[in-house]
Amino acid sequence: MSKKIAAIVTDLFEDVEYTEPAKAFKEAGHKVITIDKQAGKQVTGKKGETITIDKGIGEVNPADFDALLIPGGFSPDLLRADDRFGEFAKAFVQEGKPVFAICHGPQVLIDTDLLKGVDMTGYKSIRNDLKNAGVNYKDEEVVVSKNIVTSRTPDDIPAFNRESLKLLAK
Amino acid sequence: MSKKIAAIVTDLFEDVEYTEPAKAFKEAGHKVITIDKQAGKQVTGKKGETITIDKGIGEVNPADFDALLIPGGFSPDLLRADDRFGEFAKAFVQEGKPVFAICHGPQVLIDTDLLKGVDMTGYKSIRNDLKNAGVNYKDEEVVVSKNIVTSRTPDDIPAFNRESLKLLAK
Repeated sequence: MSKKIAAIVTDLFEDVEYTEPAKAFKEAGHKVITIDKQAGKQVTGKKGETITIDKGIGEVNPADFDALLIPGGFSPDLLRADDRFGEFAKAFVQEGKPVFAICHGPQVLIDTDLLKGVDMTGYKSIRNDLKNAGVNYKDEEVVVSKNIVTSRTPDDIPAFNRESLKLLAK
Repeated sequence: MSKKIAAIVTDLFEDVEYTEPAKAFKEAGHKVITIDKQAGKQVTGKKGETITIDKGIGEVNPADFDALLIPGGFSPDLLRADDRFGEFAKAFVQEGKPVFAICHGPQVLIDTDLLKGVDMTGYKSIRNDLKNAGVNYKDEEVVVSKNIVTSRTPDDIPAFNRESLKLLAK
C-alpha cells in the first residue's frame, strides 16, 4: 500500500540523506512530501542539491501522514530552533508511526522528550545529546527500535533504506 | 595581568562570535591562541572570515592556558565529533578557569559531563540538549555561573564580552 511520508528538511541538509531515501521510497510506490517553514520555498543541501518545499509546517497535520523522514546535515539544527518541528515529530513517535532519522536527524527527536530507553544511533557529534535524552546509544549502521529507524552517516544509507522500507511494507 | 586564552574553533564558526571577543580580549592585553585539529590550518567562518590555527589539539595542554573561548556557528558540532575537544574543555571547567561559550559553543561543554545544576544559556536550537545535560537553562543575553559565561547569539556579544573581561580581570 502506498504510504504518505513527511520529510522535514531545510537548508544545509546532507544531500544524499534526503535524495537517496526519497528515491527508494518513491520507487517502492510511496509518496514523499517535503515540509519546512513555508511551502514553495527552495532549500539547498550542503553539496548544492535543491528541493522545493511542498508544505509549510503551519499547514500540516501529523494525522495526514503515515511516516516521518528526517535527513541530517545542519538542517535538523536549523529546524529545531522552531518548536513546531519537534511537536510535529512527537505525534509520530507517540502514535507508533514509522520514523526514519539519519546523521543529525535524531536531534529533532530529542525535542519530542520521548526517547527514554529507546535504542538509537546517530552522528558521532550528537551521541552525548542522545545519551542525555535517555537513549541507549549504539554505534551501528542501523538501529531499529519499535517504530524508530536510525543511522549514523551517508555510508549507512543502504541499511537505513532497507530497514525503513521494511517498516513501510508492514 | 595578561592571560592566555585558548580559542577552540574550526570551519563554519559564526564569524563575529570569534572576531569580536578575540578583539576585545587582545585590546585588554590578553593573548588568544586558536586551536583546531592541526596547527597552520586555515579555517573559514560562515560569512567568510578566515583564521589561521596556532596549535593542534594534540600538542596543547590545558595547564598552559588561563581561559577558554568557544565561538558558535557549526564549528562546535564539527569539533565535538573528536573527543579531544570535550576533554580539553573539561579541564577548564574542573579547575574553575574562565570558560566563555556563545551560541552553539555550549555544545562542547555538554561533552564535559560537568553541567549538572549550572545556570547557562545558549542558542535556542540546543536548549533541550543543555537541559538534558542538567543545565538550568535561562533565556538571557548573558549568564554567569561561577567560571562559565554563556550567551545566545551575536546580538549578545557586548554583554558576553563585558562579563568575560570581568572574569579575566580577576
